[in-house]
Parts: sequence; structure tokens; C-alpha cells
Amino acid sequence: MNIGIYIYDQAEVLDFSGPFEVFSTAKRLGAQDINVFLISESLEPVTARGGFKILPDYSLDNHPQIDLLVVVGGVHTNEMHKSNLLNWLTSVAPLASEVASVCTGAFLLAKAGLLKDEKVTTHWEDISELKSAFPNLQVVNNQRWVTSGKFTTSGGISAGIDMSLHLVSKHYGFEQARTVARQMEYNWQKTA
Amino acid sequence: MNIGIYIYDQAEVLDFSGPFEVFSTAKRLGAQDINVFLISESLEPVTARGGFKILPDYSLDNHPQIDLLVVVGGVHTNEMHKSNLLNWLTSVAPLASEVASVCTGAFLLAKAGLLKDEKVTTHWEDISELKSAFPNLQVVNNQRWVTSGKFTTSGGISAGIDMSLHLVSKHYGFEQARTVARQMEYNWQKTA
Repeated sequence: MNIGIYIYDQAEVLDFSGPFEVFSTAKRLGAQDINVFLISESLEPVTARGGFKILPDYSLDNHPQIDLLVVVGGVHTNEMHKSNLLNWLTSVAPLASEVASVCTGAFLLAKAGLLKDEKVTTHWEDISELKSAFPNLQVVNNQRWVTSGKFTTSGGISAGIDMSLHLVSKHYGFEQARTVARQMEYNWQKTA
Repeated sequence: MNIGIYIYDQAEVLDFSGPFEVFSTAKRLGAQDINVFLISESLEPVTARGGFKILPDYSLDNHPQIDLLVVVGGVHTNEMHKSNLLNWLTSVAPLASEVASVCTGAFLLAKAGLLKDEKVTTHWEDISELKSAFPNLQVVNNQRWVTSGKFTTSGGISAGIDMSLHLVSKHYGFEQARTVARQMEYNWQKTA
């Protein structure tokens, strides 16, 4: 199971490091087919919010096939105008069996036309903006994550951890997810 | 307030990204004197657990003065034998007003002789090993974090987030910490 997490300058640190921790811990604790990696526009270092500098594993031009695509949030506004990114999202999402977003990552999926009239969520602070920018979406509040077809969108920042544990549970069983949460000493909010 | 987080190859991703998220969000939301940075042995990229590659901001040889030192866990065993690291810890800790550890970071503070007979904690899986390796320590179980003098040690992985919120609360007030937790949509476990 190839899990590709898209990151960019000014992405929120916990939006990608939380899911990375969940999936890499799941792998370590038995889900050996998981291969989790970070993708960015190029292979240059990415400076996430607060000045946190990461080296992506792959670029948009060259990466393994993605089974689960995760698009993270943060200061996403620059990303909304990158035609190469939006084209990439529309080309890679149909090949993935699942697509997820954390926080304001939902804006990028909607802007790329992948989310149309689905039930979705985002950071509580951005709920009204998501509604007004994409009025056909069914934007819900007060849920940690929402699944609609092959799309799962989560609330802000740490909600991406709960969503990732849910995805581990879905693919590897509830016990596996509970073991991962216990390893992380994380108080998993198991219901959406 | 200069917050230096020590990272190394095979450090646990959430051990450092969790506290970094808390402190950088606290800065963004008003605690403007916070300066949080990552320190490693050298300026070479660090490969944390699962293959997550970070560029540290500073090396052991050259960094700003540290007010709050945070030492993280993960596969810490190689670090236990690095005399340059242990010497650095013993030289820098007395200049810091506070020293904290996440997860098995407590082993490094104990190995450097900084933790002697304090009340401390670590990841639940490593409680008995910490007790047997450092029998003078008062190792406690089932607490998210423990403060003893200028040292605050936390349990495993995500417990570092709760500890960091506690430190924000201590220095910037409870409301500030609660606002950070809300921004992160994090269910802060406020009591140790």
C-alpha cells in the first residue's frame, strides 16, 4: 500500500507528520506492505510552517504509484494557483483507490475539481470559507473526519491523526489501529 | 524564549514535530518571543524513524543560547554512546532554565547525569528498562508528564504534545495554551 503525502512550503507541520507517524508506526507494528512517502513539487527542501525544513522523497514528476493520496493543509493559498499541482492532482487521484485531506487540504482537492458535491470537512476556522468558495460541497462541522465515496477529509491539524488511525483500522483491522494508537500513547477519537 | 529541540537519526517523528507544532503555533497566536529550532549533531539531513528526512537549523557546535531544551526519543541507543552529545547535554543544560524530554529522551538526560534521583517518566514500554538502568530515579507510570525541579519528562510520543501545551500554559498562561490546543483541534490532556 503506497501512501503518498503531498507537502509544500507553509504546510502545517502536524498535518503531515501526524499521518506519517501513524502509517509508519502501523508498518513497524506489522502492516509491512505500507510504504509511506512525502511528495513535493520538486526535490528541493520544503519549509513548512514555523520554519520546519523537510526533504521530500519524491517530486510530482517522479514518484511510485499512489494507492492512498493524502493532501495536507496549512497556508494553502499559493497552492491553489499552481496549475502543475492541480493537473497532477487530477491525473493521480483517479489512479488512487483512496484520497484524503487534512485541514485545509480539502480546498486543494475541491479546486482541482476532485471534490464536487461530496460531504466534506476542514479546519473549524475555514468551514465558512470552504462553503462559500465551493457551494456545491456539503460542508459539515464538528466531525473529526468525513468519508464520501473514495474521499476522506479531516478537520484541522491533529484530526489528521484520528483520520489516519481510522484508515489503518479500515485496511488492517481495528486491533491494528488500536495497537498503533497505544504505541503512540494517543487518545484516539475513534468515531468521526 | 529560545526552545531548542535535539533530534537525531531514528528519532521518533511525532516526538519532535508535536512539540514543534505546539510552540510554533503558540508563537503565531501571540507568544511572539518564542524561537523554536531543531538542533542535531551536524547540519547534515537527519533521517528520523520511518525515513522522514529533516534539515536541522543548528548543530551542537553552533546554536543560539537555549532557554528550554527538549530532548526527544525514538531509537535512542546509538545516542547513549556519543560522548560529544553527552558532553553537550551537560554543558548546555545548566544554562537552560528548563529541560524537557519526550518518550525515551529521558534515557539521554539520565545517561548524561542530568537526571539523578528525580521523579521522571518515559514511554510505557520502557518504564522497567529506565528503572533498571538508573535505579536512583523515581520512575512513575501512567502520567502524561512529570515535573521535578527544572526537568519535565513526558510519556511516549503524543504525550510530548500535552507536555508542550503544559509548558506553554506555564509560561504564557492557561488561556494561551487552550487557544493553541483549539487551533490544533487537539484534545489536550491538561492534567499530568
